[in-house]
Amino acid sequence: MTVMDLLSRAVLHKAELAATDNDKRNNALLCMADALRENTDSILAANELDIAAAEGKISEVMKDRLRLTPERIAAMADAVVEVTRLPDPLGRILQTVTRENGLKIEKVSVPLGVLAMIYESRPNVTSDAAALSIKSGNVCVLRGGKEAINSNKAIAAALRNGLEKAGLSADCVCLVEDTSRDSATALMTARGYVDMLIPRGGAGLIRSCVENAKVPCIETGTGICHIYVDAAADMEKAVSIVKNAKTSRPSVCNAAEVLIISSAAAEDLLPAIKKALVDDRTAEGLVPVELRLDSRAAKIIDGTAAGENDFDTEFLDYIMAVRVVDSLAEAIAHIAAHSTGHSECIITEDSESADKFVSAVDSAAVYVNASTRFTDGGEFGLGCEMGISTQKLHARGPMGLCELTSYKYIIRGNGQIR
Amino acid sequence: MTVMDLLSRAVLHKAELAATDNDKRNNALLCMADALRENTDSILAANELDIAAAEGKISEVMKDRLRLTPERIAAMADAVVEVTRLPDPLGRILQTVTRENGLKIEKVSVPLGVLAMIYESRPNVTSDAAALSIKSGNVCVLRGGKEAINSNKAIAAALRNGLEKAGLSADCVCLVEDTSRDSATALMTARGYVDMLIPRGGAGLIRSCVENAKVPCIETGTGICHIYVDAAADMEKAVSIVKNAKTSRPSVCNAAEVLIISSAAAEDLLPAIKKALVDDRTAEGLVPVELRLDSRAAKIIDGTAAGENDFDTEFLDYIMAVRVVDSLAEAIAHIAAHSTGHSECIITEDSESADKFVSAVDSAAVYVNASTRFTDGGEFGLGCEMGISTQKLHARGPMGLCELTSYKYIIRGNGQIR
Repeated sequence: MTVMDLLSRAVLHKAELAATDNDKRNNALLCMADALRENTDSILAANELDIAAAEGKISEVMKDRLRLTPERIAAMADAVVEVTRLPDPLGRILQTVTRENGLKIEKVSVPLGVLAMIYESRPNVTSDAAALSIKSGNVCVLRGGKEAINSNKAIAAALRNGLEKAGLSADCVCLVEDTSRDSATALMTARGYVDMLIPRGGAGLIRSCVENAKVPCIETGTGICHIYVDAAADMEKAVSIVKNAKTSRPSVCNAAEVLIISSAAAEDLLPAIKKALVDDRTAEGLVPVELRLDSRAAKIIDGTAAGENDFDTEFLDYIMAVRVVDSLAEAIAHIAAHSTGHSECIITEDSESADKFVSAVDSAAVYVNASTRFTDGGEFGLGCEMGISTQKLHARGPMGLCELTSYKYIIRGNGQIR
Repeated sequence: MTVMDLLSRAVLHKAELAATDNDKRNNALLCMADALRENTDSILAANELDIAAAEGKISEVMKDRLRLTPERIAAMADAVVEVTRLPDPLGRILQTVTRENGLKIEKVSVPLGVLAMIYESRPNVTSDAAALSIKSGNVCVLRGGKEAINSNKAIAAALRNGLEKAGLSADCVCLVEDTSRDSATALMTARGYVDMLIPRGGAGLIRSCVENAKVPCIETGTGICHIYVDAAADMEKAVSIVKNAKTSRPSVCNAAEVLIISSAAAEDLLPAIKKALVDDRTAEGLVPVELRLDSRAAKIIDGTAAGENDFDTEFLDYIMAVRVVDSLAEAIAHIAAHSTGHSECIITEDSESADKFVSAVDSAAVYVNASTRFTDGGEFGLGCEMGISTQKLHARGPMGLCELTSYKYIIRGNGQIR
C-alpha cells in the first residue's frame, strides 16, 4: 500500500474518532494496552528479526535501544494505560463571549485530525505516539526507521487489534511499512491529508522535515542548552546544577552543552565545577566530562582548547564547552547567537539579574537556579509528551495532549445578519 | 538591499521590541499614526505614481482599491490609533503551577519575533499589519505587491519615522522594496529569521507560500463557505441569512458560495430564496445572483445547471451553487468533501440537528442560525485581525493580537536537580 493509499484511508476515520467521548477513547487505550501484553511473544519474535538484521551494523548502545524484553513490552503497555488517567484534552471551552447582537461564540478544543510522525527512535515510540494520538482524538500515521520495522509492524498490529476490540477502526493507527526516503517525502508533502507532522530523531531528520514539509510541521528537539553562572551565583547550587544538567543523561536534548560563567565567579567556581565534572568522576570510575575551554577559562583550569564549532554543537555526550564573560549582557548575547531555543538557565542569587535573564532569553524554557533537565512533559505536569518543540508557532517546549489539539469557533444565533 | 540584508537588520531589533512595555508600544503606534497624517501629501503623491502606472492595466474596481485619498489616509491613521485601545497581548500568564519539588513554572505569552507578510491587497494593509505587529511586540517585514509599491514605500517611510520619534528603531517595520518573485521566495525560505509568514491575497499566492515556505507559515483566507438549510429551518431566517451571506459583500472570504438544502424544505424554501437572491434584486436594479443548480434543485426553480467545478469554487461573486440533499448526514458529508474549512452554517430550529452539525463539521467557524459573514476579528470581539487562518496549527479562524504571540516557560527554583 502506498503512503497516499494509507493516508486516504486514515482521513476517513477523522470524523469517527473526533466524535468519540473520553470514555470511549480511554477504553480503546486499555484495549490497546491489553493487546500489547497479549502479543508479547509475537512482538518479541519480530524484534529478534530486527536485532539479527542489525548485527554488526549498529553499536551495542543502539542495539540495546532497539531490543525489547517482556519487561519493556509491559512498560509500554503501562505507559498506554497511564495516558487514560490524563484529563480529556477535547471539548475544553477555551473562551465564551456573547456579543451585543446576541451571538454566542464559543471557542472549543478539537483534534487536529491526522498526526504524522517520522521517527528513528526505539520501538516504544510507536505505542507512546499512538496512545497520545488516540487520547487526543487524532488519527495517527507513524513512520519509524527501517532498523525497527519488524518490531514496529508487530506493535502496530497489536495496537490496531486493540482499537478494533474497542469498536474503533484499526485505521485510526496506521503504520507506514515502507521505510524508504520516498515514504518520508510522501508524508511531508501530503497537503490536505496531514494536519501536523512531528519529526522525532536526529538533527538531520528534523532539518529534512522542516525544509521539505509542505504540511504543517513542528520543529523539535535540538537542544544546545546553556547554563550561565552569574557573579552572584551560590557556589553549591552552581556545582550541583551544572553537574546534573551535564552528566545525569547527556544523550537527551535537555542536557546542558555550554557553560557560560561570569569572570567575577570564574576563579572560585571553575575549579569546583571541574572537580565535580572531571576529577570526582574519574575517581569514581565514571566517564569524565571533556571541558572545551575558551582562552580565559583555560587560564583557570585544565581542559581542551575550544574549537570553532564547540559553541554551536549539540554534543549529546560527556563534553561541555566553557566560556568566561564579563557581564550578564554578554551572556545573553552569546545565548541569542548560539542557542537553539530549547532550555537555558541562570544561576544567581540576584533577583534583578534573574529577571533580566528570563525576560531577555528567547527560549522555550528559561530557568533560574534549576537544572535544564526538567524540560520534559512529565516534569512540567503535562503527564506525557510527544516531543519538545523548539519553534514558536503552535507549540513551544514540551508538547502534551493539549498541544495535539486545535480549536473551532461555534457560533449560535437567532437569525443574525451583518 | 537584499531581503537577507533586510532580515539581518530586522532580527537585531527583536529583543529591543520584546522588552518594551505596553505604554511604549502604544506610544509608538500614536507616533506612527501622527506620521501617517503628517505625510499625507507625500503618500498621495506616491499613490499617484501607482495609479498612473496602473492605467489601462487593471480594472476600475482594482484601481479604486489602490487609490488613496486624504480621507482614506486619515482612516488608516485612525485604525492604528484603534489598536492602542486593545489589551496588551504580551506578558499574559497563561498557566502557573508549583511542582512538588518546589519548582514554580509559569507559561507566559511572548512575541513570535519576526513576522513576515506577503500581500497583494490595498495599501492600507501596510499600516494595519505594521500596527498589529508592533502592538504584539513583533518586528515585521512587509512585502506588498508591485502595483502598490510607491504607496507602500511612502507609507512605510512614515511609519518608520513614527517609530523613531517614539524612540524605537525604524527597522522594527521593514518594507521589502523588491517586488519580484525572488524576494517572496527569499522570505519563504529564510529559516531562522522569520518566525511566522502570513500570506494574504489570492488563492495562488497562498498556495505558493504554503507549498514553498520553509519557515512556519499560516494558510489563510480561502473560503468556500456552505449554508445548510435543514428540514426544520425557519423560513424567514433561512431567506434572510442566505441573502446576507451571499450578497452583502460577495468578494470577501466569509461570503457563502454554496447552498445545501434539505429535500424536505426545498419545495417551499427554494422559490423564496430565489426570489430574494434573483427576482427582488433584479427589480431593485441590483446584480441578480446566478444560481448554479444541481438536477434536483433545477426541478424546483430556474437557474443555470451546475457544472463539475461549481461545488469547489470560491466564486467571490454574485454566484451560488445549490444542491438538494436528503439528510443532515448527506449535508455534513458534502461539506467534509468540498469545504476549505473556513465557515459553515446550519439553519434549523431543531437543536439536535444543530448540535450534530457543529460537532461534525470541521471548520474554523461553525454557525447555527447566523450569517457566515460574522467570521471576522472585529465581529468575534478580537478588536482586529491579521487574516483568517484556514489551517489548524497555531491559529484557526480570525487571527487577532494573541494569535501573533508565542509563549515561554519561566521556571524558578532553588537548586533543584533531577
